[in-house]
This record gives sequence, C-alpha cells and structure tokens, in this order.
Amino acid sequence: MKPMTQANRTSDHSPGISPDPDRLARHCRWLLSQNCAGLAVFGTNSEANSLALDERMTLLDALAEAGLDTARMMPGTGCCALSDSVRLTAHAVKLGCAGVLMLPPFYYKGVSDEGLYRTFAEIIERVGDDRLRIYLYHFPQMSQVPLGIELVGRLRESFPGIIAGMKDSSGDRDNLNAVLSAFPGFGYFAGNETLLLANMRAGGVGCISATANVNPKAIDGLFQNWQADNADEQQSSLNSVREAVQQFPLVPALKKIISHYASDPEWNRLRPPLVELAEADGDQLIADLDAVGFEMHGIRG
Amino acid sequence: MKPMTQANRTSDHSPGISPDPDRLARHCRWLLSQNCAGLAVFGTNSEANSLALDERMTLLDALAEAGLDTARMMPGTGCCALSDSVRLTAHAVKLGCAGVLMLPPFYYKGVSDEGLYRTFAEIIERVGDDRLRIYLYHFPQMSQVPLGIELVGRLRESFPGIIAGMKDSSGDRDNLNAVLSAFPGFGYFAGNETLLLANMRAGGVGCISATANVNPKAIDGLFQNWQADNADEQQSSLNSVREAVQQFPLVPALKKIISHYASDPEWNRLRPPLVELAEADGDQLIADLDAVGFEMHGIRG
Repeated sequence: MKPMTQANRTSDHSPGISPDPDRLARHCRWLLSQNCAGLAVFGTNSEANSLALDERMTLLDALAEAGLDTARMMPGTGCCALSDSVRLTAHAVKLGCAGVLMLPPFYYKGVSDEGLYRTFAEIIERVGDDRLRIYLYHFPQMSQVPLGIELVGRLRESFPGIIAGMKDSSGDRDNLNAVLSAFPGFGYFAGNETLLLANMRAGGVGCISATANVNPKAIDGLFQNWQADNADEQQSSLNSVREAVQQFPLVPALKKIISHYASDPEWNRLRPPLVELAEADGDQLIADLDAVGFEMHGIRG
Repeated sequence: MKPMTQANRTSDHSPGISPDPDRLARHCRWLLSQNCAGLAVFGTNSEANSLALDERMTLLDALAEAGLDTARMMPGTGCCALSDSVRLTAHAVKLGCAGVLMLPPFYYKGVSDEGLYRTFAEIIERVGDDRLRIYLYHFPQMSQVPLGIELVGRLRESFPGIIAGMKDSSGDRDNLNAVLSAFPGFGYFAGNETLLLANMRAGGVGCISATANVNPKAIDGLFQNWQADNADEQQSSLNSVREAVQQFPLVPALKKIISHYASDPEWNRLRPPLVELAEADGDQLIADLDAVGFEMHGIRG
C-alpha cells in the first residue's frame, strides 16, 4: 500500500460557513495525480470533527459524483454517538469505500476497554456488512481516549478481517513496534511521514498524514523506495518540510500553504473553533518552506 | 433560581441501544415533584454526548409532548460541529426552553479564545432569535477545552442578555469567586452541589448537578435555606451522599441507584462507551448510601 493522505476540507463561505465540495474534489484529484494511493477524507486535519453528520455524508456523495474512486477512500467515521458512527460507516461501505478510519467516542474520558470494545462491536454488528474494513484511529493527544494494544487484540480476535488495521497518531515508536510485533501483517499506518521509514522497516503499510496534503509526491517517493540506500536521507528531507509546517497549528498552516501555492484565497478559511494563521505567521511559514526548496507542482487549478 | 438537575437519559434496549422517552419523561416529572426548579436535560451525565443530533431532538420533542414544561428546561446543545449546535439550539428555542447549556466544540484541543469566540458568535447569529439564553458550560476535565474568564467577558459584552450565565463544573473555587467578582449578577451555577453553599454566598444562582437526579429534595433544601444557621450542616449532609456516589464512575452509579430504588432493572443500562457498574460495586454503593440514610421518596412507579 501507498501513503494515504487526508484531504483537507476546503473553504467555507462566511457567514454561515459551509464546506466547498468542488474545491475538495479538485484537491483530491490533485493528490491522486501526485501518487497518493488513497484519500483519508474526514480525518482530524480535514476539520471533519467540525462537520455535522449530514455534511460529511453529502461531501462523500459529492466526491463519488465527481468521479473520484471510492475504492481509494478511507473516510473518518468515528463520532461521539455510536448511532452517528453507524450511519456514516454504513454510508461509506455502501458507496464502496476501501475502509473507514474510526476514532473512538471522544467526549467521555477514562472509559474502560470494555466500553470501547462494546462501542466498536455494536457499530460492526449494526452496520452488518462483510465488506466493512475498520482502521482504528489511535490519537490520544487529541481524542484523549487511547486505544491500547489489548483492546486492539480483542477486537481483532472477535472481528478478524473487519478490524483491518490502524492509524497510530501517537508518534510513539514503542507502540509502533509493540503493535507490529504482536500483530504481524496488521494494516498499520504511521500517523504522519516522520515515522514512515521506521514503520516500513517494522512491517507497517505506510502513513496517513496531514502534511501529505501538501507534500504527497516526496512522501510517496520514500514509500516506494524505503529499501533504497538513500532512504534515511529521504526521511530527513520529509522531516524538514514537516518541521517547517508544524511550527504553526497544523490545519491553519496547511490551508495557508495550499492557498498560497494555488493562488486561491478561498482556501485560507477555517470553520471555528479553528482560525486562520496570523499574516506574519503565514509569511514566515511560506518563507521557511521556500528555504527548504518546497514546491507544489500542478496545484494551480 | 433553584438548583437545576440533569435528567438522566433512560435505558437502552439492546441490541441497537436506543433512548427510552417514556422513562425519561417519568423521571423528569419525579424531579419536578421533588422541587427541582428546572431540568438540564442532555448534560454530560445524561449521556447526551453519546446521542446523535436527531436522537436529542426527538427526545426533546417527546418531553414537550409528554406535557413537561419547556420553560423549565435548559437542554445541552453544544456539539463538536457548530452546524449541529445551531440546529439543536434553534430547536430548543423554538420549543420555548428557558435556556441552553452550551459546551464548546471539544474535539480540537488547544484552540484559541478567538476561535471559541467565533464559534459562539456564529451560533448566536445563525440561531438569530432574541429569546436565546446561553449558559456556557465550563468543564475542562471532560471537554479539555476551558472557557476562560476573558472569553466569557468578551462574549457577555458582544451579546448582553443572550450570554446569560454559566455552569462551572471545574470544581475550582477560585474560578467561582473570580467569575462572580468580575460579573455580578451573572447566572452562575456550580457544577454540582458540593459548591452550592459557597456559590450562593458568592452571589451565584444555584447548582446543576448530576447527583440532583437522585438527591433533589435535599439539594433544594439547602438552596432554599442557604442563609439558615444550619446551612453548613446541610452542605455536609449533601456532601456525604455525593461522596458515596462518586467513589464510582458517576453515570453508571446514578443509573444503578435509580434502578435500585425504583426497582426497575431497565434503568441499569448504558450506551457504550459507558458501561454499568460491576455487581459488587453496585452492592457496595447501595450499602454506603443506606449507611448515610439515603432515600428516594416516590421514585417507584
């Protein structure tokens, strides 16, 4: 498998900010043209958790209607209410999506493994479709609800095949190694490209990264050539772009970058509670990216 | 104003767990019969954040149809997606609810005050109804998104009257005193009854408490008589019940208590990710409550 990318939700039109399906579809097409294997739409950095259920369902329909291949999509479908997760997941399966990326319910903190197990089990049973492939989304810094290795093991045992893998955004190398040692062949994605090489060496399958929205081709380059002599050098080069981006809040930074290189001010909008970068920060970001030779070929529409 | 209570969502029917509007309405009627001034339905301990938007809207309709007075309700309407918050809030206003209890969007962490300000401002503008009364819901331990005093002040200035108060579940006495000193007359509710007396003495308006679901009359007793000589003694008595309850996870404990005293096993169901208390814990809880003379008059049938 190749690195996946999270397609950013595109600009909102204030007042009454709403998603922009045309720009989203255009961006998805560009990502595929840059060798992304798939599209993890509705991840954290898509601002998916600021979108209502019907907004996500409508956007997914719009992507399919725009001719994008749903078999290359892994939409985020994990909501606070399992009834919402069921509806969104069933919709994704019906549309032929390759898999879904599923956060645990994230409002209640300190919940038990038993409670998390029951959540995923009930979603799987209610969706009731053998085509379902779930990639567990472990992002404890944001969700504050970790998915531990024992829970993952129990879910894999109960639902073999359906629990197909995970995206680990913890950035924790020990967890990466522990999961892949415990579950060889598990569809394990690093949460961003800074652990792509480590993940491939440990038996993982790629990365799903916010920054793949702006740097897809180089990330795919390492993915394709992780056994090459210069792999560590490629990893360092990816890291330098990532570092330039993540010195600022990630979603505003990515929207600023796309807006700048696409010469499209509409891209620099965010739905509250997220806000755009201050102008000086945006200028600094672009200057830092220029300094490491960053480009976005073909992004101008 | 009197103490408000969070009415617990009632039992789910597995498989395909769903809310039980009849039991919810019956419980709400019991709470009002026990002198609760109002019903903060869809708070944290109502499991509201495990309910989909349409489930909450349908339950609110069901309560109104069951003849419960919406003018005594303050439903929770703060969702992750502001588009959802707009719909739920508008629905509550249309039904004549006294106010709404509004969490900030709680998925994204470390968001700016500017982003939170824009969230509330956009919700208010899109709801566009002068009858709207918002009670800000500050619960940093659960939401991980605090509502600081500067933000509260800015919102009050921009939307006088509409920003009517807050529920502070931080348990932080310094914040209680700071908010009430900064904004005299603000509709400030303590997040539970353990700070009820302190709040009344500082100029607050009552408490909104999960444990008011099981101990409403005694809490109202202190609310009515907080200037009496035995107020501190009453506060201690409330605290001993609260302590017995919160030695266990709060929502499962409350459902166990209602189930036990109402002799209704249906009450002891939770929607994942929450799970019922282990049997031994439930037995211990009831024994501890019995030991402090706890009762729930009239809860049966």
